[in-house]
Amino acid sequence: MAGFSDGERERIRAALLDAGSELFARYGLDKTTVGELADAAGIATGSFYTFFDSKERLYYEVLMERAEDAFARMTAAVEAADGPESGTRAFLREAIAIVEEDPLIRNLVYGNERERLLRAISDEEIEATKERKVALLAPYVERWQDEGVVRSGDPETLALAVQSAGFVVAHRDEFGSEEEYEAVRDALVDLVAAGLASP
Amino acid sequence: MAGFSDGERERIRAALLDAGSELFARYGLDKTTVGELADAAGIATGSFYTFFDSKERLYYEVLMERAEDAFARMTAAVEAADGPESGTRAFLREAIAIVEEDPLIRNLVYGNERERLLRAISDEEIEATKERKVALLAPYVERWQDEGVVRSGDPETLALAVQSAGFVVAHRDEFGSEEEYEAVRDALVDLVAAGLASP
Repeated sequence: MAGFSDGERERIRAALLDAGSELFARYGLDKTTVGELADAAGIATGSFYTFFDSKERLYYEVLMERAEDAFARMTAAVEAADGPESGTRAFLREAIAIVEEDPLIRNLVYGNERERLLRAISDEEIEATKERKVALLAPYVERWQDEGVVRSGDPETLALAVQSAGFVVAHRDEFGSEEEYEAVRDALVDLVAAGLASP
Repeated sequence: MAGFSDGERERIRAALLDAGSELFARYGLDKTTVGELADAAGIATGSFYTFFDSKERLYYEVLMERAEDAFARMTAAVEAADGPESGTRAFLREAIAIVEEDPLIRNLVYGNERERLLRAISDEEIEATKERKVALLAPYVERWQDEGVVRSGDPETLALAVQSAGFVVAHRDEFGSEEEYEAVRDALVDLVAAGLASP
């Protein structure tokens, strides 16, 4: 495989993930070429494909790394809170902040790169990521239901409903002003958290 | 103006609105031509422009007619309910049903015709439509606040937050199945309504 030792492969793979993380965030999927990515990792363009099937595939792997960080932040937010309402609010605020802050995650959630990216990912991987996402809040909902402090209903459906409030981020530009968007976003988070916590 | 009497102008204008309503819904803004619209109303293509500045403008007028019907349905839904939680739920369900059912309103809310359409509408008109939309639920929120049966906060912000839950419609395709979308959509509506009604 282009004569790389296992150690070299590991180093190059990490360098490609770093290059992807930086270049995709700065220039987007379209304007970043395989040549530039390979260059940044110090390999020939042709060697790129012994690491990733396509730049979309690299983009996906970069995203998965970021998603793990994001998921950890969201879980930590619930853990730090002291009940279902504040926990749900903290979880959703964190989720929204991540999408607002991270250009790569934002593109996946509502960018025009979404469709193209999904084509580079298998159905199984899409399903696994989704299950991973649902599994973040659903166990807390279930626990809170056992304690009788949140409404009843399928925990996964309720968890997805809470997370669906986050779609507001994708419609940020449709508000009259940034202030209005922020006020409405925060009010929506409050409504959803209070709604879940009203048994 | 092309020799039309006032009565003729009124009749032709109504015919153009009908034609737009049908053709835009069936073929979309792009694939419907001014020639087809004029044809359907029995006038020459050139005469179209003595009625509307552009097909985008006609599209907007058709939408405004439909929006008035939609607004009436949403208000009737709140009026028919017997409290803030069921009223908010009925309002939001109705709003979502309208977007799901009406291809023209759906295109405005999240289609690729949105941008193009907005360019044909003045800022004042966009603002007026938005104020009209906010004015639907906000007075009820204010009244409910006076009765102490909903949470406090700016009524317009709360009304917009409730309506923002409707963004989920624009993300229908991102759910695993139609059943999942419907379950999550309904749960989100329930959360928001219960959240507003928890003072």
